Amino acid sequence: MSDIPDTHPRAASLRLRERLVEGLHAGIVTETGLIAHGRGEAIDYLLGERTHPFAERAVAAASAVLTLAAHPVVTTNGNVVALVGRELVALAEHHPRLAFEVNLFHHSPERAQRVLSHLRGLGLARAMHFSESAAPAVLPGLDSARRFMHPEGVGKADAVLVALEDGDRCQALVASGRTVVAIDLNPLSRTAKMAQVTIVDELTRVVPALDRQLLTDRTAPREELERRLAEYDNRAVLREAVAAIRTGFAGE
Amino acid sequence: MSDIPDTHPRAASLRLRERLVEGLHAGIVTETGLIAHGRGEAIDYLLGERTHPFAERAVAAASAVLTLAAHPVVTTNGNVVALVGRELVALAEHHPRLAFEVNLFHHSPERAQRVLSHLRGLGLARAMHFSESAAPAVLPGLDSARRFMHPEGVGKADAVLVALEDGDRCQALVASGRTVVAIDLNPLSRTAKMAQVTIVDELTRVVPALDRQLLTDRTAPREELERRLAEYDNRAVLREAVAAIRTGFAGE
Repeated sequence: MSDIPDTHPRAASLRLRERLVEGLHAGIVTETGLIAHGRGEAIDYLLGERTHPFAERAVAAASAVLTLAAHPVVTTNGNVVALVGRELVALAEHHPRLAFEVNLFHHSPERAQRVLSHLRGLGLARAMHFSESAAPAVLPGLDSARRFMHPEGVGKADAVLVALEDGDRCQALVASGRTVVAIDLNPLSRTAKMAQVTIVDELTRVVPALDRQLLTDRTAPREELERRLAEYDNRAVLREAVAAIRTGFAGE
Repeated sequence: MSDIPDTHPRAASLRLRERLVEGLHAGIVTETGLIAHGRGEAIDYLLGERTHPFAERAVAAASAVLTLAAHPVVTTNGNVVALVGRELVALAEHHPRLAFEVNLFHHSPERAQRVLSHLRGLGLARAMHFSESAAPAVLPGLDSARRFMHPEGVGKADAVLVALEDGDRCQALVASGRTVVAIDLNPLSRTAKMAQVTIVDELTRVVPALDRQLLTDRTAPREELERRLAEYDNRAVLREAVAAIRTGFAGE
């Protein structure tokens, strides 16, 4: 499919672009989703396109949150499905406790169906969407179709993983009493600041790392996970992420 | 056309996105052009979406370069035409000495024709493209169709304005002995570093400002313009731009 040689210095970044462009042509990704990806690309470039220690600590905390939760749910949108569809399928196979729900910023019934079909076609049969519930739940504080929740998904979740998510939905999820883990390259975004655990790293690096950590934590004593969360400092993570990006933007 | 109210805090930025999405649908902008725009958006956000003094100094120097040149040429690509097509038409009307040439990163004869037709439809009748020359000139150091130059455009230019341009073409233009003015939001890009004058600012703010400065400079004594260029320090401009962006990315 791809003409990008492995030796190209920007091969990983260029392959992600290809996935998004394919997603656009498949009607999964929107045009503004491509622009949003470019904003993230700029930050990942400044991070040296690598995972930093602050992101590793956040992934460990995220795993603790999801492992301790009664009803952990991963929510995905068009960009997420285009970028890490296969990695989400692996995550779902390894962790049967995790629920998956699609939530789109630019919602239409047709687009939601395309995203769902794509995920299910990859193998994520249990992906949910509010439109397939007879009685969707409603998240207060949002006024678009993004407020609807599947009652078996985000509707009953106590912990939600959001990725590349808009600030107002993250804020509404936190305000509803749910614990929110966010994957966001911009440590200054509202999403990054509102979430209890913020993973500042590129999505295709985060999902496999989180998958591995969740496998390890499955046999961890509950007290260890609780201690890990008690010691976790999300503000420090965000501060370190800002510092790393500023260092990346250092001139010569 | 647009549903974005003037009072929206990000109205200007959202309107630019609309222009690009329309450009994509018209076959003028590419998908990777949308992603590239997102990268620029991230930086403009950190600049506070306003013109800084270092950009004003660079615009003054750019105007001096173009005014003193024997054959100044403005080169445009798909994103540039989508973002500032109308502003380029005004620039062309006000400054008959300026030539305009289309040069595409993702070239195809059809796309080149669409971009040219679009520009001419807006009123820029004298826009050139190498494909309309019987004997295109060749810029050494490039291996794609980007190396071709119209002999009446970049081919005979002594000064070239490039906007949102790739580093290798900027480098090749400088290596050919031409004076290059670049408009680029990333002061760390190869384009920004290679150009003799780098305007670190958003394109839709730059073109009208440059237009006004060129009008003022039309009656300026040659010695004044030469002195302005002698005193101009592009490295200082780039340093100040980096500092402004780092300040924008300051966290709490």
